[in-house]
Amino acid sequence: MTTQTPTAIPDVQNSADSRQLAINKVGIKSIRHPIKVMDKNGGVQHTIAMFNMYVGLPHNFKGTHMSRFVEILNSHEREISVESFEPMLREMVHKLEAETGHVEMTFPYFINKAAPVSGVQSLMDYEVTFIGEIREGGVYEFTMKIVVPVTSLCPCSKKISEYGAHNQRSHVTVTTTTNDHLWIEELVQLVEGQASCELYGLLKRPDEKYVTERAYDNPKFVEDMVRDVAGCLNREPRIDAYVVESENFESIHNHSAYALIEHDKRAQ
Amino acid sequence: MTTQTPTAIPDVQNSADSRQLAINKVGIKSIRHPIKVMDKNGGVQHTIAMFNMYVGLPHNFKGTHMSRFVEILNSHEREISVESFEPMLREMVHKLEAETGHVEMTFPYFINKAAPVSGVQSLMDYEVTFIGEIREGGVYEFTMKIVVPVTSLCPCSKKISEYGAHNQRSHVTVTTTTNDHLWIEELVQLVEGQASCELYGLLKRPDEKYVTERAYDNPKFVEDMVRDVAGCLNREPRIDAYVVESENFESIHNHSAYALIEHDKRAQ
Amino acid sequence: MTTQTPTAIPDVQNSADSRQLAINKVGIKSIRHPIKVMDKNGGVQHTIAMFNMYVGLPHNFKGTHMSRFVEILNSHEREISVESFEPMLREMVHKLEAETGHVEMTFPYFINKAAPVSGVQSLMDYEVTFIGEIREGGVYEFTMKIVVPVTSLCPCSKKISEYGAHNQRSHVTVTTTTNDHLWIEELVQLVEGQASCELYGLLKRPDEKYVTERAYDNPKFVEDMVRDVAGCLNREPRIDAYVVESENFESIHNHSAYALIEHDKRAQ
Amino acid sequence: MTTQTPTAIPDVQNSADSRQLAINKVGIKSIRHPIKVMDKNGGVQHTIAMFNMYVGLPHNFKGTHMSRFVEILNSHEREISVESFEPMLREMVHKLEAETGHVEMTFPYFINKAAPVSGVQSLMDYEVTFIGEIREGGVYEFTMKIVVPVTSLCPCSKKISEYGAHNQRSHVTVTTTTNDHLWIEELVQLVEGQASCELYGLLKRPDEKYVTERAYDNPKFVEDMVRDVAGCLNREPRIDAYVVESENFESIHNHSAYALIEHDKRAQ
Repeated sequence: MTTQTPTAIPDVQNSADSRQLAINKVGIKSIRHPIKVMDKNGGVQHTIAMFNMYVGLPHNFKGTHMSRFVEILNSHEREISVESFEPMLREMVHKLEAETGHVEMTFPYFINKAAPVSGVQSLMDYEVTFIGEIREGGVYEFTMKIVVPVTSLCPCSKKISEYGAHNQRSHVTVTTTTNDHLWIEELVQLVEGQASCELYGLLKRPDEKYVTERAYDNPKFVEDMVRDVAGCLNREPRIDAYVVESENFESIHNHSAYALIEHDKRAQ
Repeated sequence: MTTQTPTAIPDVQNSADSRQLAINKVGIKSIRHPIKVMDKNGGVQHTIAMFNMYVGLPHNFKGTHMSRFVEILNSHEREISVESFEPMLREMVHKLEAETGHVEMTFPYFINKAAPVSGVQSLMDYEVTFIGEIREGGVYEFTMKIVVPVTSLCPCSKKISEYGAHNQRSHVTVTTTTNDHLWIEELVQLVEGQASCELYGLLKRPDEKYVTERAYDNPKFVEDMVRDVAGCLNREPRIDAYVVESENFESIHNHSAYALIEHDKRAQ
Repeated sequence: MTTQTPTAIPDVQNSADSRQLAINKVGIKSIRHPIKVMDKNGGVQHTIAMFNMYVGLPHNFKGTHMSRFVEILNSHEREISVESFEPMLREMVHKLEAETGHVEMTFPYFINKAAPVSGVQSLMDYEVTFIGEIREGGVYEFTMKIVVPVTSLCPCSKKISEYGAHNQRSHVTVTTTTNDHLWIEELVQLVEGQASCELYGLLKRPDEKYVTERAYDNPKFVEDMVRDVAGCLNREPRIDAYVVESENFESIHNHSAYALIEHDKRAQ
Repeated sequence: MTTQTPTAIPDVQNSADSRQLAINKVGIKSIRHPIKVMDKNGGVQHTIAMFNMYVGLPHNFKGTHMSRFVEILNSHEREISVESFEPMLREMVHKLEAETGHVEMTFPYFINKAAPVSGVQSLMDYEVTFIGEIREGGVYEFTMKIVVPVTSLCPCSKKISEYGAHNQRSHVTVTTTTNDHLWIEELVQLVEGQASCELYGLLKRPDEKYVTERAYDNPKFVEDMVRDVAGCLNREPRIDAYVVESENFESIHNHSAYALIEHDKRAQ
């Protein structure tokens, strides 16, 4: 799978195709590359991303040029932000001589958090995905997906038990299509504010007392979690559409409790 | 997370909710259960499935009853076929007092294959997912997804090299919404017929010679693979809509080549 | 990679090798096959196993015959028990003309459990691995590994907080080399008896009250968990050597707490 | 799970234990943290590591202090090299008041490679693990593990077929205990030199012709691969002991071919 070169080596991909079948997405999948992401404090975070990069292929072309996708990644050291993501997509679509394009970039992102009582600082990691799409006619759409790990504490267990309540780690995943800039840190904070309690890398004993009592004071079903996050997303004007999911890795079962709300404000 | 019981223990899930937010899907995720699947030869295959089971929850209910999903799985030994999948969904929606429901069931499925020259028999495993959905108004839709591992051999590599051609294992994934019965075996055969060569569990030397030469005689780009499968799916009247994907785990790179075609015949 | 056949096709694997390097393990990895496992109640459980099958290869042989491993799996429908595992290994070592051999077989195994108060029954799944080894001189050793998911509740969190205590799902993994027959069910019960509380597929509200209070009454650090299981394994004469690990998927952090004890009684 | 603090909050972990059972390893598992790794060219590479950090716990202590492990990671921005790994372990053992310790740190590492004909440059990613161990008496041992993806081409398939030969991506994993400094780049190069062909991120058509023909000219069984790497490792005096594994993701089967050689030069 190679690019065109000005030699006598035949260029099979560039030949015509008669099957009358356009391809929605074609490109490279699961390629790792180092990136730099701008954070809310004005700094730059070095991390490692997994990329999927695709273009649409009209019915009359036999193949795309796979190596051009890799050239784009390697052409210069990537300093990536929500703003620079669109130019990268437009460059890809142009170089691949395509009309439509789609890039997904998944990376661990770190936020420095202070423990709630002692104030000791530590990093928490979140899995973030940037998804950019150029549609027919050149319209660009940006979607940000974040997996936010939190504590959930079961209201039923608390209510029916004389003491204690089962709780567990949960993954709240928000996928938001935005019409204006939204920081990773803003979306994380929005989600963590709705959980029974947020997570920390480092907790000293007074902090552990705090998070234990905070979760007990703030029980949430998986249904409550997605509803309370959806309420916040509904009130945020920079978000056009969203999916919010919560998966609770139940501490009393070997399976998860799960809920999902999806909403497109533009559909109304 | 429990069912209603006629005791004095409070039923928190059953209380009213005032947030005015309906939940699209709520239920249990990633629960493993043994099942029996009917095969094309009239036999029954024992296997192990991973289930996701969800219902829609109207805005005025606080929570669903998680334990009822598990009760359905455990209520009787499940002999599951494409036909019995719809009754299971309708039972779930009824027991959960819901209007809409969604079940995904993923399992390894085995097909006994004869090697192409020696005829020696062995099992090949495929990952199959049954997806059933009951929409508002009670309309039922069935989708079958199969991951078919095959050999792909690169036409460009063959054309430009004096000898040899890079080849590799690929995953062709077909997701088909059907209007009539389609066997797993039929869909697997449809895909394998379009690959550079199909895979086998057991090959003797004359078979290995055959599959090597067969793949070399039959080179396919990732684009060819999805187009040739799409052509077959277009001609199959039992299929209403489909997505076909191919991921080639390139033997010359540390990333994949990927292509996708999706088509809904009903949209025209 | 094929077997010997009485044809003119050359047999590359069977040629001599001059590098003077014996190979400890060579064979096939990650092949799925359906199996039947005998359970403690005299029944037979159908499940799906992932196999790794290796033999030792003396320095003077160029290659092993990969297809013979697959032939062994496909030769007859496998009804596998701890007892039938040794004959399967001896057959493999014999067919491959080897002196030493190693088989790992990992499968989901289900135990029907009654909820602690209501008595409602449901299946719980456990990941089990059988490991058989034939050493030089023909000595056979059998090792059974089970991952048992349980609830752990933190003693520190309970002690320092006015109410509540963080708890989570944990995986307790026991790897035991045995000198006499031990049922999967026996080892699972031994581990579950030491947890803050055991898990169930299905719990009604009185059961949920029970498991919540039981875990709160029975807090365990990850250190307590491995020590208390190790104490039981020390008292079980059918076990010659063991490793016990516990990984707690902390509900207040995004990482795990972990502990491990290993002990070989024969070393003393 | 917290550190000692000079308050009235009880310190449960610090209490005495009477079970007479020492714990081989206790600590934190699967915590992600950004690191900087020194590369062979004198530069520094930013990457993301997954850490497991454990100490030994004597029989008379109830628990370790989990938060101190996290403090070590967060105490200063980590610039990690083979040389700085030992001081980090000694700091951990000291802060945890332990005698023995064990750290595993797994991260993606990138090497800039030039394509074999065109010379175009691109990054290739490798999964590297540093493993450090402090034994009783304070002896330190360092082990480096690298997964090197390569192309393997089957000698049997080439020999018996009139044209073509099946080939595929393989993972060669080397785990080396060293007595002197060895760069990641050196070990990668040693392995890649023994493969049918090495992999590249970016290949133009003349490069693709080269790698196709190179692999065909250089067929290797999984047995050859581990033997040829073992031969190189035997000749490298900085390596005291090693395990070399190769897993070929066979393009003609749905399972892998696998081989392993392990050797400790000090045992002789």
